[in-house]
Amino acid sequence: MPRQAVPLAKSYLLLNHGPVTLVSSAHAGQRNVMAAAWAMPLDFDPPKVAVVIDKNTLTAALVNGSGEFVLNVPSRAQADQVLAVGSCSGRDGDKFAALGLTAEVGTQVAAPLVDGCLAWLECRILPEAHHQQTYDLYVAEVLAAWADSKAFSNGRWHFPDAMQRTIHYVAGGEFFSTGEAFAAKKVR
Amino acid sequence: MPRQAVPLAKSYLLLNHGPVTLVSSAHAGQRNVMAAAWAMPLDFDPPKVAVVIDKNTLTAALVNGSGEFVLNVPSRAQADQVLAVGSCSGRDGDKFAALGLTAEVGTQVAAPLVDGCLAWLECRILPEAHHQQTYDLYVAEVLAAWADSKAFSNGRWHFPDAMQRTIHYVAGGEFFSTGEAFAAKKVR
Repeated sequence: MPRQAVPLAKSYLLLNHGPVTLVSSAHAGQRNVMAAAWAMPLDFDPPKVAVVIDKNTLTAALVNGSGEFVLNVPSRAQADQVLAVGSCSGRDGDKFAALGLTAEVGTQVAAPLVDGCLAWLECRILPEAHHQQTYDLYVAEVLAAWADSKAFSNGRWHFPDAMQRTIHYVAGGEFFSTGEAFAAKKVR
Repeated sequence: MPRQAVPLAKSYLLLNHGPVTLVSSAHAGQRNVMAAAWAMPLDFDPPKVAVVIDKNTLTAALVNGSGEFVLNVPSRAQADQVLAVGSCSGRDGDKFAALGLTAEVGTQVAAPLVDGCLAWLECRILPEAHHQQTYDLYVAEVLAAWADSKAFSNGRWHFPDAMQRTIHYVAGGEFFSTGEAFAAKKVR
């Protein structure tokens, strides 16, 4: 995995354009991965993120137990797997094994970094029980960030090809690829 | 404005793919609009959203005063204006007038619906002072949702042309257009 460290103050750029994410987690000898479209940056420096994790999921149990998760940013090449991990429960068996996903343990957290993704944010949750219980909404600090240097380096996304692009989830197994880059003109 | 009502239970689809938004607000005779990339759905039905609004902005003052805002989903044709409203403060003068933006008052809230956008979510904030003060994070219920039927109808985005697509903010005036639609295959 050509994984390069992303400076923490630039890590918001990995999520700023709203790609779908995979939330991976590990606790007490169990690991899991699920899809989450509802994830976003929450602060620049120190970087924070917000993510919605349904309280009925195994992921919520592992995140609550460990206090940690990784937000993985998958590529279009992984879209079938993104749909699959969002469509079954880790309680029915290890999704990594079932789907042929491989991963490495994080550097700051025990949650796994899913191989083949374009970026990874290792996160530790901030204790906000009310929002977790009321809205399934977790806020977390980003402890380390990584990107595949073919897709993101020097603070910029530069997708090498159509399949190595980030993706955005719609519904019902449908996605959008991240499209054309353009710069807005400064008005006046 | 070819504005068609979107059923509330489908309104999450307007934000699910992570487009940049404009947050518009009005209170006590003053109105404003700012750009927000950090906005996402929070629940399906009744629909809720989460959005980050910096406490130092005029928008935060108007949202705190009125308890309401509109999330507008702009098109690529409006990218220069999205950048502009994100780069100046309403305290220095009405941005609508300065940028030639027109708007109509919402149906459920006093905040304006910005003309030319592709979708609109009229929102009332839920009283969560701790998260507002600690993280600048607002949670809100969606009271009404609308879309330009040329771009979204029957629960689906179908962008008519390159300029009438949603956009995703990166940084420094750079954006991505929402790209190609595709369907993932069901694994196994």
